[in-house]
Amino acid sequence: MTTRPDVLDAADPLAAFRDRFVIDHDLVAYLDGNSLGRVPKATVERLGTFVREEWGSRLIRGWDDSWVDLPVTVGDELGAALLGAAPGQTVIADSTSVNIYKLLHAAADLRPDRDEIVIDATNFPTDRYLVESVAAARGMTVRWLEPDLVDNVTVDVVAGALGERTALVVLSQVDYRSGTLVDLPAVTQLVHDASALVLWDLCHSAGVMPIGLDAAQADFAVGCTYKYLNSGPGSPAFMYVAERHVTEVAQPISGWFSAADLFAMSDTYVAAPDIRRMLSGTPAVAGIVAVQEGVRLIAEAGVDAIRAKSEALTAHTIGLLDAAGLVIVTPRDSALRGSHVTVRHPDARSITDQMIARGVVPDFREPDLIRLGLSPLSTSFAEVEAGVRVLVELAAGTRR
Amino acid sequence: MTTRPDVLDAADPLAAFRDRFVIDHDLVAYLDGNSLGRVPKATVERLGTFVREEWGSRLIRGWDDSWVDLPVTVGDELGAALLGAAPGQTVIADSTSVNIYKLLHAAADLRPDRDEIVIDATNFPTDRYLVESVAAARGMTVRWLEPDLVDNVTVDVVAGALGERTALVVLSQVDYRSGTLVDLPAVTQLVHDASALVLWDLCHSAGVMPIGLDAAQADFAVGCTYKYLNSGPGSPAFMYVAERHVTEVAQPISGWFSAADLFAMSDTYVAAPDIRRMLSGTPAVAGIVAVQEGVRLIAEAGVDAIRAKSEALTAHTIGLLDAAGLVIVTPRDSALRGSHVTVRHPDARSITDQMIARGVVPDFREPDLIRLGLSPLSTSFAEVEAGVRVLVELAAGTRR
Repeated sequence: MTTRPDVLDAADPLAAFRDRFVIDHDLVAYLDGNSLGRVPKATVERLGTFVREEWGSRLIRGWDDSWVDLPVTVGDELGAALLGAAPGQTVIADSTSVNIYKLLHAAADLRPDRDEIVIDATNFPTDRYLVESVAAARGMTVRWLEPDLVDNVTVDVVAGALGERTALVVLSQVDYRSGTLVDLPAVTQLVHDASALVLWDLCHSAGVMPIGLDAAQADFAVGCTYKYLNSGPGSPAFMYVAERHVTEVAQPISGWFSAADLFAMSDTYVAAPDIRRMLSGTPAVAGIVAVQEGVRLIAEAGVDAIRAKSEALTAHTIGLLDAAGLVIVTPRDSALRGSHVTVRHPDARSITDQMIARGVVPDFREPDLIRLGLSPLSTSFAEVEAGVRVLVELAAGTRR
Repeated sequence: MTTRPDVLDAADPLAAFRDRFVIDHDLVAYLDGNSLGRVPKATVERLGTFVREEWGSRLIRGWDDSWVDLPVTVGDELGAALLGAAPGQTVIADSTSVNIYKLLHAAADLRPDRDEIVIDATNFPTDRYLVESVAAARGMTVRWLEPDLVDNVTVDVVAGALGERTALVVLSQVDYRSGTLVDLPAVTQLVHDASALVLWDLCHSAGVMPIGLDAAQADFAVGCTYKYLNSGPGSPAFMYVAERHVTEVAQPISGWFSAADLFAMSDTYVAAPDIRRMLSGTPAVAGIVAVQEGVRLIAEAGVDAIRAKSEALTAHTIGLLDAAGLVIVTPRDSALRGSHVTVRHPDARSITDQMIARGVVPDFREPDLIRLGLSPLSTSFAEVEAGVRVLVELAAGTRR
């Protein structure tokens, strides 16, 4: 027997944050905040002000005012609020894909005598495609982990792949399909024991749990900001480089924003002495401003409180799905999952389409998965209940 | 004797376009639209609508609606209106720097038996830095052109550098300092005669003149959209790949948006069969929407009419500067210049600061250049006259 959603909402210390978002009441339930987060009301305001007053009135002088530093200042805010990262290690720039590309080269450069990159076959396509591209360009070998979808990348799975050839291990902290949470500190330690480096993709974990990159002594991380950071479709990504690596890394897309003397426009390229060396072209200012608003909402709520609500939301969802006898591929132990719950059903695609037609938006993932993303700041227990009820009805209707 | 600015404004067929922009009347003159263009009023509206109605209400469904195609659909609009490019050759993506990086690798792959990249030492820093980075990574040599600042990259200068080792020539169509316009069709032909490829940086020409990439049979081009395209600080860049190269090019930042089967999330990477193969990560949707508004303004006015006004604006400016006896480093033949005029003065930095203090915004470029950018759709002759008058007064005050 699950608790009534109105009781859970009444007891939710973060319930008031839902009013900080634009909520479209034509939808019964939006359960895809892990693909694209809702619009914070503060972002609507901020972007309007930015266009009219910063771009419109300050014009080129905006670069001197603050824009030139935004990749680092907002990176530091994000690092502090979400990643457990001290200042000077995080920037907002480019896309997750471009950032992965830069870090793959940067990491490989740091292990010139090693020629293997380890990645799981269950990882998100962009990570896999980029690892293959960089490995091919550098004459390196890709070593594939083949984990179980639900258990995902355990310490044992990783341990079996590490060796003297391992330069770098690329993993997602939360699996984009199953929602399984990988043990970031333990795996990082394991990789370091093999004298290799680790690049964490935090796309499905940033903003819904404390991450503790500094504490875990992680090497590199990337993540997007359009999911739980609510910064808008295709908003710029973030990148983390541990302080001990910052002064020694190089990256190949050495555009003018990575140079030590940006406006001197020097004849000779010298990389910036700090994390700015990971930048490339002109920063997307409006995009970064939206990221700042998303980060500030999370900072205000606090990632520990957000994690607590996330666990409660996913537990409630799992309770409802279990009661209906649906198959889930997400760990039942809340310590082992992120903030989405995934149902496996042979009619997943058709059920997803019918859910959307009834005003409930989940996410279909090939070949038979329905993903329910629960964004703690904007999702209520009542919304989850309403959405899952539609899923359960439709699944029952398929008579399988 | 120059014509009175009010007479010129009265006769200007594009004069009404100035009202389509947010004009800050606290400024006497904004002469830096070639660094950051003004805000189109349509963009203020469109971004507001986009955030509230597209992102806010359609949420993840926006990707199915239209977002996923925006890099190509807006690329096609830009190609048609600005570049003389048929559909299927232009995308809006990433930054100019990232796009240069991709195209350097793509071009080098097409000339595997050649090992030189030619670029002028006067080119914009990001172009030079990236050429050096890619050449080093691929074991290629950079061959530097050393043109005169004013004459810039003539056919003769390029001819002397081409040979059997030349894989690629990288040039800016309009020099960012002097404003000199390079003869794109003639240089393209010359490079092709040497069986090499050419990559044009159009940052300082796109939006102020007809470019005719298809007619010139150019190979590759890039450009930013925050200057004469008025799309906002750090707005996404564009990239052009000639149709004959589209199906044969590869690029290294092979993120998921470059794959043939974006949402199939396939185990094996297969590049998209079309120009989408040049994309990498998730497109910056709000940024592309702003580019679309900027492109549409230019399309409405027409690049031929814009070029005519640009020539008149720069001629008027040169007339005023000549009358005051100032030194300019921009060609006097309007057929040989873009849309900015540059003054050389030993006190350039101090004069720039004083101009800004008096409400006139030009651009200082090391070591002794004051650049006056004239954005045809938003700059009036009266504005130019008021701005140049302040420059002339300050320069006279320095008693040199």
